[in-house]
Amino acid sequence: MPPASSVPMEKRPRMVDKLASVRGFFNAENVRKVTNNSALAAYFLPSTDAHNSEYLAEYDFRVKFLSNFSGSNAQVVITPKKALLWTDGRYYVQANRQLSKEWEMKTMNEPDSITVTEFLISELRRGDFVGFDPTLLSFDSAETMRKKLKGVGIHLVAVDGNLVDPIWANRPSLGHKKVTVLTKQEHGKETSVKIKELREKLVKKKCTAAIYTVLDDIVWLLNIRGFDITYNPLVYSYLLVTAEKVVLFIDESKLDETSTKHLIDSKVDIQPYESTFEYLKNWNSTTPDQRIHLSPATNYAIGSIFGVDNIVTDTSFAQIAKAQKNDIEMEGMRQSHIRDSAALVEFLVWFENEMLAGNEYSEIELAKRLDTIRSRQEKYVDLSFSTISAFGDHAALPHYHPEGEDGQRKANSKNVYLVDSGAHYRDGTTDVTRTVWYTNPSSEFIKSNSLVLKGHISLAQTVFPSGIMGGRLDTLSRHALWQQGLDFSHGTGHGVGHFLNVHEGPIGIGISTAAARPGGELKVGQVITIEPGYYLPGSYGIRIENCYETVKTSVPSGADNFLGFKTLTLVPIQTSIIDKSIFTESEINWLNEYHSEVLEKTGKQLLKNGKTREYEWLKTACKHI
Amino acid sequence: MPPASSVPMEKRPRMVDKLASVRGFFNAENVRKVTNNSALAAYFLPSTDAHNSEYLAEYDFRVKFLSNFSGSNAQVVITPKKALLWTDGRYYVQANRQLSKEWEMKTMNEPDSITVTEFLISELRRGDFVGFDPTLLSFDSAETMRKKLKGVGIHLVAVDGNLVDPIWANRPSLGHKKVTVLTKQEHGKETSVKIKELREKLVKKKCTAAIYTVLDDIVWLLNIRGFDITYNPLVYSYLLVTAEKVVLFIDESKLDETSTKHLIDSKVDIQPYESTFEYLKNWNSTTPDQRIHLSPATNYAIGSIFGVDNIVTDTSFAQIAKAQKNDIEMEGMRQSHIRDSAALVEFLVWFENEMLAGNEYSEIELAKRLDTIRSRQEKYVDLSFSTISAFGDHAALPHYHPEGEDGQRKANSKNVYLVDSGAHYRDGTTDVTRTVWYTNPSSEFIKSNSLVLKGHISLAQTVFPSGIMGGRLDTLSRHALWQQGLDFSHGTGHGVGHFLNVHEGPIGIGISTAAARPGGELKVGQVITIEPGYYLPGSYGIRIENCYETVKTSVPSGADNFLGFKTLTLVPIQTSIIDKSIFTESEINWLNEYHSEVLEKTGKQLLKNGKTREYEWLKTACKHI
Repeated sequence: MPPASSVPMEKRPRMVDKLASVRGFFNAENVRKVTNNSALAAYFLPSTDAHNSEYLAEYDFRVKFLSNFSGSNAQVVITPKKALLWTDGRYYVQANRQLSKEWEMKTMNEPDSITVTEFLISELRRGDFVGFDPTLLSFDSAETMRKKLKGVGIHLVAVDGNLVDPIWANRPSLGHKKVTVLTKQEHGKETSVKIKELREKLVKKKCTAAIYTVLDDIVWLLNIRGFDITYNPLVYSYLLVTAEKVVLFIDESKLDETSTKHLIDSKVDIQPYESTFEYLKNWNSTTPDQRIHLSPATNYAIGSIFGVDNIVTDTSFAQIAKAQKNDIEMEGMRQSHIRDSAALVEFLVWFENEMLAGNEYSEIELAKRLDTIRSRQEKYVDLSFSTISAFGDHAALPHYHPEGEDGQRKANSKNVYLVDSGAHYRDGTTDVTRTVWYTNPSSEFIKSNSLVLKGHISLAQTVFPSGIMGGRLDTLSRHALWQQGLDFSHGTGHGVGHFLNVHEGPIGIGISTAAARPGGELKVGQVITIEPGYYLPGSYGIRIENCYETVKTSVPSGADNFLGFKTLTLVPIQTSIIDKSIFTESEINWLNEYHSEVLEKTGKQLLKNGKTREYEWLKTACKHI
Repeated sequence: MPPASSVPMEKRPRMVDKLASVRGFFNAENVRKVTNNSALAAYFLPSTDAHNSEYLAEYDFRVKFLSNFSGSNAQVVITPKKALLWTDGRYYVQANRQLSKEWEMKTMNEPDSITVTEFLISELRRGDFVGFDPTLLSFDSAETMRKKLKGVGIHLVAVDGNLVDPIWANRPSLGHKKVTVLTKQEHGKETSVKIKELREKLVKKKCTAAIYTVLDDIVWLLNIRGFDITYNPLVYSYLLVTAEKVVLFIDESKLDETSTKHLIDSKVDIQPYESTFEYLKNWNSTTPDQRIHLSPATNYAIGSIFGVDNIVTDTSFAQIAKAQKNDIEMEGMRQSHIRDSAALVEFLVWFENEMLAGNEYSEIELAKRLDTIRSRQEKYVDLSFSTISAFGDHAALPHYHPEGEDGQRKANSKNVYLVDSGAHYRDGTTDVTRTVWYTNPSSEFIKSNSLVLKGHISLAQTVFPSGIMGGRLDTLSRHALWQQGLDFSHGTGHGVGHFLNVHEGPIGIGISTAAARPGGELKVGQVITIEPGYYLPGSYGIRIENCYETVKTSVPSGADNFLGFKTLTLVPIQTSIIDKSIFTESEINWLNEYHSEVLEKTGKQLLKNGKTREYEWLKTACKHI
């Protein structure tokens, strides 16, 4: 997630000045070229990049540069008089703190939310023009928006060149970090086999080619990993796959001898990243009758080269294939989670001792300590996201990251400490959250914490039919909270990549993913988090998160199509802050069995690491209740 | 649901002949007009009418006429060599029994299902033409299908005049049954007020007009009810609402003096039903710059008059408004459910006595007996659907209706009897299912029945946030079954109309409605069924269904946005066929409290009806466990 901007505080233009500068371009030449010489009545800027990445390279932090909002999901609309920023339930508190008074925050997906399109319809007049950067909006959503606006006589126009970039004086560069190549022992399936399987699926769909624009699809297909986006093992690139050829568009300075050889051996043509649009235009004009398989995330700049009639928009085959780990990937996930769990336990032991001894550390110091312990583990590559180290009411912000003055807050034993963290290892990616409170936890907190854990266990121990959409399980993690009139405003879980994105589609257990998103079916061999929470703004926050693999489960009926969850994360859950009386016998059994497995596997790892003191602590932490 | 065709058996052309006749029109003049003189490579026929009704007038039973399949959801594709029929999980067993060997059944919405469009893409060749009747496919789905097919060079063309109708010798007529007008004491809100509120919503959406094509929208807005479709209080019509006028397209022979006066008083212009398309074409050409609010169910014949750029496709405002009953409607629902429950109890008492006495009745006779008892209740108008009276393994067909030889099966006390039934009263519509087994129920049945009831109660007693999509609650009714490796293949619940459709959108608790269907948010004052089931083909079936109203619920947190379900249906649930040990204390309390309410309210009604013997039976049936 977004680290602090590299532009020093004093050099930043004031928010109002930035807005004025952007508005100054509403009548610029590149605008007038597509508006019959009119000025824009609004400019639409989503917080993404040309690859629809969830986390961005600093190079693409346009929304943060413009608005100061650092959350990972935002849509901005600038009009001559207004500046609005839409975000979702994870970020309402944060956005209200980070946005200056020139900005208005709008909610997403609430019953009374209005969408950007609905806002534009109510705000603008017939004949008005709305501009957007064609690399920053997907072809599908741009087409949908264009049609809806056209119905009321408003024109949505693609403006080449982003209106924020010219005022961004010290814009960070993308860098030239070299990609790394996975070995067969690491990836489990050769690129040539993945490409072959992909081509078979294209033929079945009567498609002649696929263009990959989402970065984790590309690196997974090519068995490489990159380092362009902090905490995300990705490299800026596009990939064209036809029946005859595979073309990778990439900055060649990011390839060394090994990766170049690997790509050439895998019969991949290498072309400059900057040449993508030009190359595809030429290829399209010289190779008629194409039917292109594109992910819905494909940007408008690429989609508009081919036009709606020649496109099949569908969840990419790589997304679906990648979600089901092969045996080597899954074994890597299991092993990396054991090492990662041992690292987190090592931190928690130290933290508890320090807190009970009355020593003080800031949230930032605590995150650094944990990050350092993780970095010493075997096969460690990087964190999988910026560690959430949140004390007291900071924990009530689900996506809080300790930064600046806020992050200087000192933790102590007398309030809640929430730590959500993970890492990339060569053999897997991890993501885990624990919430602890050592001295005098309030009874209200204990009650809420128990409800969150009850929801977690209820979902973790359920059995369900293979092939259902993950969203259908979401309610199980909220049910206990609902009965008390409580809820939380984020999804329950997300897919996790194998040494890849910590948020990996298309699977998830969420509110909006309750929709039938193609490819979101739960199948055996997937990795997904369960992470219900509860957040009381101004007081405390709770989240309990493990990663799970989906496994075939035997059922009394004898049916062979039922699945269950098997834990990957093996870190104790603090039992002194739960009210045992609200749990069923079966839920208590789950917790006790979980702790037995933690002690066995994480304990063994701690002993292997020479951490005998931590092992003794673990024995106590894993005692059955 | 569909009664037997009015064409006697011996006069029916054989299925193969019918298919041959339809194929004979693949090259007809009305086809060649839209195909550049080519013959069709396929004809697509969904089982609906021009109003996208779920249940059809016999006049529109084209799919049944052609294929013999009588289920309510089907999509048919005829090619020169193949005849295929798609249906959903409710009907797989039934379709396999009813379709002759010339037909191939295809599944809908299963993980391995392929859609009609996908089938056409895999089956046909570039340049082929697929025909459809523009009144039988929605504008949206036709446009989507057209684009997808166009990508592989296949043309979807609207063929005027249905290809089945010319071979349908004794096609039933629509009839001329008069509409009835609701009084203020019955509807609770004048038509003029409903139209005024609708116009306000149109202005807010920047729409200039709405066209209603879905029949329950129209009769609800106009406070009338019709009798064109068996068991559905609807009249064939279209409705145009602009800022200045309201135009009803209807066969005037269906209006009497009262209804004509009511419509004129409500400032509704009356135009012939047949003139709809012509009128709208003229109106569109003389009134430019329209922005028309259309439901996604609007047929292609109407949508194509205006074109995609002038249409706002969205759940109709009438659908959303109608789902939230006003006080008079809701009180009517409560009262009609008490009377209806007393009728069903009267039947169940008689049935149990007859079965235990060893007397034999066929499924059809039993349904008639129940229907007669219902018809004697105050304010009774009609059944709300054809009574499902199913003995033994017939109960394993979720949408079974006793007809022909099958319906002659005699019930006895030694197997399961499932009765799913309901009625329209002037003050409300009902829908209830009970499953009973009096002598020696198998322990396997008792276990399954207990799991179904556990799922029912789990959902019925849940508390949930107002505004969530109903689909998010679906899993609660399946969870107990899943843990044993069991499931059922239909949704958990549907909205119910007020003296209107027994399946009423847009709310529902379902598998596919887990998607965010606009307007599907659960709010206070709605009526919805809960009806989990379990079906073991060849053995037995179970379903336990009540109607519930959504009510504000106080929660420990003090939040004011949580809802719960309050029962409308008040019929005892047989307690001698459940295994108490699998229920939680809270679930048993729910059941006991439910039975107390049944005894109080339905008991009172039975006494009012002079049914003292039945009241004594009820006292026993409602004993706490």
